Amino acid sequence: MSTLSPCEPKYLELKNSLIQIRDLEAAVSILNWDQTTYMPTGGTSARGRQIATLKELAHEKFTDPSIGQLLQDLRPYEQSLPYDSTEASLIRVTRRDYERAIRVPSEFMAKFCQHQATAYEAWVKAKSLKNFSLVQPYLEKTLDLSRELACFFPHKHIADPLIDFVDEGMTVSILRPLFRKLRQKLLPIVEAITSGPPINDFYLRQYYPKEQQLKFGRTVTKHIGFDFQRGRQDETPHPFTSSFSIGDVRITTRVYENNCTEALFSTVHEVGHALYEQGIALELEGTPLAEGTSSGIHESQSRLWENMVARSRCFWECFYPQLQGIFLKQLSCISVSEFYQAINKVVKSPIRTDADEVTYNLHVMIRFDLELAMLEGKLAVCDLPEAWNERYKKDLGIVPTNYSEGVMQDVHWYGEMIGGMFQGYTLGNLIAAQIYETAVKSNPEITVAIEQGNFTLLHKWLKHNIYQHGRKYTAKELIDRVTGKPLSIDPFIRYIQNKYSDIYSVKLALVA
Amino acid sequence: MSTLSPCEPKYLELKNSLIQIRDLEAAVSILNWDQTTYMPTGGTSARGRQIATLKELAHEKFTDPSIGQLLQDLRPYEQSLPYDSTEASLIRVTRRDYERAIRVPSEFMAKFCQHQATAYEAWVKAKSLKNFSLVQPYLEKTLDLSRELACFFPHKHIADPLIDFVDEGMTVSILRPLFRKLRQKLLPIVEAITSGPPINDFYLRQYYPKEQQLKFGRTVTKHIGFDFQRGRQDETPHPFTSSFSIGDVRITTRVYENNCTEALFSTVHEVGHALYEQGIALELEGTPLAEGTSSGIHESQSRLWENMVARSRCFWECFYPQLQGIFLKQLSCISVSEFYQAINKVVKSPIRTDADEVTYNLHVMIRFDLELAMLEGKLAVCDLPEAWNERYKKDLGIVPTNYSEGVMQDVHWYGEMIGGMFQGYTLGNLIAAQIYETAVKSNPEITVAIEQGNFTLLHKWLKHNIYQHGRKYTAKELIDRVTGKPLSIDPFIRYIQNKYSDIYSVKLALVA
Repeated sequence: MSTLSPCEPKYLELKNSLIQIRDLEAAVSILNWDQTTYMPTGGTSARGRQIATLKELAHEKFTDPSIGQLLQDLRPYEQSLPYDSTEASLIRVTRRDYERAIRVPSEFMAKFCQHQATAYEAWVKAKSLKNFSLVQPYLEKTLDLSRELACFFPHKHIADPLIDFVDEGMTVSILRPLFRKLRQKLLPIVEAITSGPPINDFYLRQYYPKEQQLKFGRTVTKHIGFDFQRGRQDETPHPFTSSFSIGDVRITTRVYENNCTEALFSTVHEVGHALYEQGIALELEGTPLAEGTSSGIHESQSRLWENMVARSRCFWECFYPQLQGIFLKQLSCISVSEFYQAINKVVKSPIRTDADEVTYNLHVMIRFDLELAMLEGKLAVCDLPEAWNERYKKDLGIVPTNYSEGVMQDVHWYGEMIGGMFQGYTLGNLIAAQIYETAVKSNPEITVAIEQGNFTLLHKWLKHNIYQHGRKYTAKELIDRVTGKPLSIDPFIRYIQNKYSDIYSVKLALVA
Repeated sequence: MSTLSPCEPKYLELKNSLIQIRDLEAAVSILNWDQTTYMPTGGTSARGRQIATLKELAHEKFTDPSIGQLLQDLRPYEQSLPYDSTEASLIRVTRRDYERAIRVPSEFMAKFCQHQATAYEAWVKAKSLKNFSLVQPYLEKTLDLSRELACFFPHKHIADPLIDFVDEGMTVSILRPLFRKLRQKLLPIVEAITSGPPINDFYLRQYYPKEQQLKFGRTVTKHIGFDFQRGRQDETPHPFTSSFSIGDVRITTRVYENNCTEALFSTVHEVGHALYEQGIALELEGTPLAEGTSSGIHESQSRLWENMVARSRCFWECFYPQLQGIFLKQLSCISVSEFYQAINKVVKSPIRTDADEVTYNLHVMIRFDLELAMLEGKLAVCDLPEAWNERYKKDLGIVPTNYSEGVMQDVHWYGEMIGGMFQGYTLGNLIAAQIYETAVKSNPEITVAIEQGNFTLLHKWLKHNIYQHGRKYTAKELIDRVTGKPLSIDPFIRYIQNKYSDIYSVKLALVA
């Protein structure tokens, strides 16, 4: 045992430096949020510069050798503490971050960021003109840079480091077989569901005035536990969540007036992310532990609230009368059962973000496989659009009408990089099912409470088991701790089979 | 002549460092703006920390000896260039800032900032309870710290360094006689005006719905030249202007529904500040030259638009029909002459921010004199409330009904410091009159154009003569260049005499 005290001065020195760095990163988030919500267009170029300056400073401070020295000096202190103490966790997580950060030269990151901005601009233009060739050279360079970035790290598969950035511990050798199994299960389920008569949902596409949609959304948001004293909601073209501190977590929403529920579900999705960030233990505030632990776990929390809760039958048993009361003209003749079916309609469609929860993972896995093929050098960027269309034909039986609705639909490859961009979505769905199944098993009253509009039981359970820990545990550790089992596709498949057997009156269990 | 080129590498190195520092300062402004406009209350404590971190970093970077070395090395380059070249100006202004910044130890500034935050909290509470004794000990410490701060600088009068922070080149030996003369002129003018029958303005205090006020305000704001592509307007309890870059300058507004014009004039005031910031030459963007040059010059631009323009007869010849059309019920029986008189009504009142432009400077000079007396050790903080009331009795013939409407009305001493806090307001009024007189003399069509709702002439003149230069020139240099004369109280007294002789039908020229 070490004789170092919990007030070990070097620990406090490290913590204070990390808080300062995180303050810079929070400022970056605030500047980004402002740029997306309220900034006048005239601010664009200066804002880009300001954000770059703050990011550079944060990076410079974090990769300073003094941080490495502190981490080195604190090894005995760390080893003297329990694994899940805040102190040991902070040192452990910071060491991982640090060792990752110092591998990539600042000049390379600056060059890559510069290219990302240019590629993004090119994508915006190419997408609006439905012309992939305009963005192709940029994407080729992105591929080169993504490979170059990965090569700063030791790896078995070239995609592994890129995946590890956001889903630590995940590798191609874990994900490829997992996703293959998932796809094999899903394809026949989708086939069975969509070969029957389609659900009628035309009434969801009537005129639903924005103000009333927003008002209902705010009611739901408050009800499920978003704390407006410690957050707010604004409108943006692309919804997102950002956290500036545990006490200031913001979501954004977009409303389509010809769609009854799009805004609601996307809001609940963001609320899921936000509850996670608002629920982190206050003692972690300002430190690198004060955020969600991985892309997959974060997405699991948004999808759990969006799909398992807000697209459930028991949720609408409670909220449908309210919604019907607001949109009497549009919904008076529609029963809660019909409504429940309509919002869970399964369709083979070309756009990932519009996809239902059954087909959604097929969209994701197409991107995951294409990413890997590009990184492996087996697919050239010039052949990507065709490969995309072929795979859509194969998995979803459709071919996008143009490249804007096909290969150019998502910003990720064009605005960020190739590799590590998509697996988090499917991981999120799998983890959500596994966690929700555990929650309901350990506390069966959760669903009864939801039917009565009471989300406290579920919220508390998630806060206790997931939210409060921030980044203390990796995704793998958290899943093992919470569910007692390693990550598996089974709970998700069970969830889909149970829910959709009922909605579509097909025996999916047999099919799968 | 030096042989250094305009691309002198050390100059670029200095400029790049300064831009980086200014990016940090801009981030501070954005975080402050967000805190005041949209931040949820839960964000307060983290936000305080984030702002402090960014400020500290900016200060640390700016006071780094490498900046001093660059300034030293660039002397020959600076001397080889014309005084008003951007390069020479940037070096000159930075040198002044640097020499000021390195005199104050960081630990002292941290202690002072900490105290300011505590004193501010105490003031908020004391003011709400109308109890000066609750804030007195804090104010005593503020006085000590203000004196301590001043003593880091060589000075003739203890207040000089504090005044110099915001109104460079101004000293007590210049201001005291100037203000004394001004007071001597103003007291009899106020007396002559207010001894006649009061103007009837009760109809300005009817119910004026907020939305309509805001709409009319936006029309005026756009019309006089605020560029909404490069700025925005939000609501806050205390209006202010902040600039995040030349392309992103924001104003805020507060509306009282029982007051027809308060919001409008305060908005035009902020627009005056904003036009200055939006009008700075783009080549200065991101550098320390890209802001207004002094507290007095900045205030002159807000007061010029608020008073000389928006409280003028010709302005309302154009806009009154529109206002009357919006508020028909309230204003249909009121002629433009009556309205013009009402909005220029002179009243001896206790609150500075409510004061008309004739009595306003008396309020300011009371504070200025009390500040000096406290700094000189001639007035103890415990005697301040009584001294305040006495002087109000003497100059304005009234005694505030309580300390919240008296000595505790302004945040400045409680939230910032004692010294340098108020002279800028009166300097602003004097400079505004001197500049506006010059503008109209050099281009008499300016007032004719305003009567026709055309502000372009004036706006262009100000941009050319004032705005574009940013901080290239000091206030003194700018006044000399633009008006051809040193600062004087005469144009302001002439302006007041002409305007109010007419409004009150008294021969003020004779009185004064």
